[in-house]
Amino acid sequence: MLSLLRNPPFGFKLWGGEEVATHGSRVRRWICVPDRSKLYKLLANPGLYMGEYYSDGSIQLEGDLWSFLLDIHASLVAGDRDPSLLWKLIRRPAQRRPSTPEAAKDNIHQHYDLGNEFYQLWLDKAAMQYTCAYFARPDMTLEQAQIAKLDHVCRKLRLKPGDTVVEAGCGWGGLARHMARNYGVTVKAFNISHEQIIFARERAAQEGLADRVEYIEDDYRNIQGRFDVFASVGMLEHVGPEQYRHLGAVIDRCLKRDGRGLIHTVGSNAQTPMNDWLQRRIFPGSYVPTLREMMEVFEPHFLSVLDVENLRLHYELTLRAWLDRFERHVDVIRARYGENFVRAFRFYLAGCGTAFAAGSLQLFQVVFAKPNNNDLPWSRRHLYDSYHDGERRD
Amino acid sequence: MLSLLRNPPFGFKLWGGEEVATHGSRVRRWICVPDRSKLYKLLANPGLYMGEYYSDGSIQLEGDLWSFLLDIHASLVAGDRDPSLLWKLIRRPAQRRPSTPEAAKDNIHQHYDLGNEFYQLWLDKAAMQYTCAYFARPDMTLEQAQIAKLDHVCRKLRLKPGDTVVEAGCGWGGLARHMARNYGVTVKAFNISHEQIIFARERAAQEGLADRVEYIEDDYRNIQGRFDVFASVGMLEHVGPEQYRHLGAVIDRCLKRDGRGLIHTVGSNAQTPMNDWLQRRIFPGSYVPTLREMMEVFEPHFLSVLDVENLRLHYELTLRAWLDRFERHVDVIRARYGENFVRAFRFYLAGCGTAFAAGSLQLFQVVFAKPNNNDLPWSRRHLYDSYHDGERRD
Repeated sequence: MLSLLRNPPFGFKLWGGEEVATHGSRVRRWICVPDRSKLYKLLANPGLYMGEYYSDGSIQLEGDLWSFLLDIHASLVAGDRDPSLLWKLIRRPAQRRPSTPEAAKDNIHQHYDLGNEFYQLWLDKAAMQYTCAYFARPDMTLEQAQIAKLDHVCRKLRLKPGDTVVEAGCGWGGLARHMARNYGVTVKAFNISHEQIIFARERAAQEGLADRVEYIEDDYRNIQGRFDVFASVGMLEHVGPEQYRHLGAVIDRCLKRDGRGLIHTVGSNAQTPMNDWLQRRIFPGSYVPTLREMMEVFEPHFLSVLDVENLRLHYELTLRAWLDRFERHVDVIRARYGENFVRAFRFYLAGCGTAFAAGSLQLFQVVFAKPNNNDLPWSRRHLYDSYHDGERRD
Repeated sequence: MLSLLRNPPFGFKLWGGEEVATHGSRVRRWICVPDRSKLYKLLANPGLYMGEYYSDGSIQLEGDLWSFLLDIHASLVAGDRDPSLLWKLIRRPAQRRPSTPEAAKDNIHQHYDLGNEFYQLWLDKAAMQYTCAYFARPDMTLEQAQIAKLDHVCRKLRLKPGDTVVEAGCGWGGLARHMARNYGVTVKAFNISHEQIIFARERAAQEGLADRVEYIEDDYRNIQGRFDVFASVGMLEHVGPEQYRHLGAVIDRCLKRDGRGLIHTVGSNAQTPMNDWLQRRIFPGSYVPTLREMMEVFEPHFLSVLDVENLRLHYELTLRAWLDRFERHVDVIRARYGENFVRAFRFYLAGCGTAFAAGSLQLFQVVFAKPNNNDLPWSRRHLYDSYHDGERRD
């Protein structure tokens, strides 16, 4: 397995003290495996059991988790060009169930309803964004970068006062409130996470935005009405490729003739298997599309793709910031959710952060419009006006 | 047919003086058809015979050709959602032969070797660009906008002194010379048009760039060596979808580990038929891909898409400018190539310009990189520095 991984700089330290590493690799880190049965399971399905055994503490990783996972992802990026059957076996596709409306409710509940207080511990205070931030400069704080992301999205959508916006998958509602507060638009925002909707409504009421932002606890498939703008930030990962064409039909139906929209999603360079553990323990039902697969949203409905931006290194910084904050509050989190949860969540945040760092995950923002919308910007220069340099107007 | 076209604002004036238009449409323009046999052919295959009969003068179009073709394209954009068999019949796919190396030489010769003097009459003087210009401001001249396009491409590629560039399909060599002159790079530029290569070499020698730009009369499939940058502006349209994966292999093979590249191409929102006449008379072997189809270049080789920009309205302006210049020199062109050629070329330029205007054609610039290239820009702000406002540094 190690040689399949291109002689990575780590090896196995076995229960009897024996060290296994590939010849010639400069081993910097060791995975300590406690018994033969766990070793076999690790070799048979590393994607699943690395996560399982790290979470329950039965394997130990010597050294820094982030660097360790970065080495793994770098090996995977190199290895995915390997046509061998053995490689295909260790990279077998994860099981996932299609995101029917029923299953979707379940899938979303499992992760997003963990408790708003939990997420408030380590997400940005300003807008509670659980999606990739936009570090217009790499020295921005997470708070600045999340606000910069919201503005980047709003500018890409060229919001103007009076526009009507529909948002699919609104999280804790930060984007919708930001749009209404700063761009003079009205927003209908859909979400099937009960906890998030409660939070979003409270915030909107506190901030005096309740007349301009409506949070609707319902599936995106039930969006009704016609809007100038469609926005979806971090929902496509939960939609599932079998539903892309239908999502496109919803978008097409709900956009006016001069309508435009944006989808922000985790993506992939090529169809590589989702991590099995992440699929089972963190994001059931999720799927990370390639750009080709995403086109199934747009092409059947003749929607015109105007702009695609890949922000993967921004997600590395975002996840690094989340993990740092998570660790600062780890005692509180452990007291409430237990040690296994802490280890699993740490493994998930570091695993995703390093996947973006190594180039095994991408972050796409795709701007699109109705095919005959000719109200298009001459250039994207308007995205880069001054306040992205860190000055804020509010 | 007119009702299939959603009651467009034009109708047929027949040989006996009879006028045919759909009820309720406000007819602004007439197509004058001289006899029954031509009417039948027009109805059976409008995509082919509109071009044929316009070129040989056997049908007359009353009023402005540009507005007339704009109406047609608007009808096509609306009609392509029509699931009817009748619609599929009038929009049947054009015949094209795959672009094998042999066929490609033939296809390219037919259009691009018409004579350098001919293209010099109506392309921009500065860089002889036969691809979409970039009107950073809509009031730029064609010359300014073509230089702005070259800089836009160079900035997207983040050229730095010492970089090695390979260009696939270099036209008259303007981009390669611009890169070498202004960005301190060396360029190997491939092209199978003999006339263009002769011109490109002469210009490079005149401008003292022959030591930094090498023009190679050969197929892109024969690119050898390793480079920092791959660039291709306006070649993919001639590659053919059956060759995309192989083009990707060439790119993957010729790019260094931190390599990056750009493909600039005419594209489409969805798989709609190429115009049969254009395929036969103007661009044999050509094919206009959707973004999904373009991914066949990148995904099999794990290339990472970083940036996609759609510049279709820029191509409307470019084609309008070309047509205006063409008409200014029409007497010279007619004297050399004859009236049928003039009418065919006019129909082609106006047909494409209006297709971009109506949203039935797109123009994609796609920036990509090797999957593990982490030398990525934090934002695209650097594309929008001052001299794009029309100031030039050279």
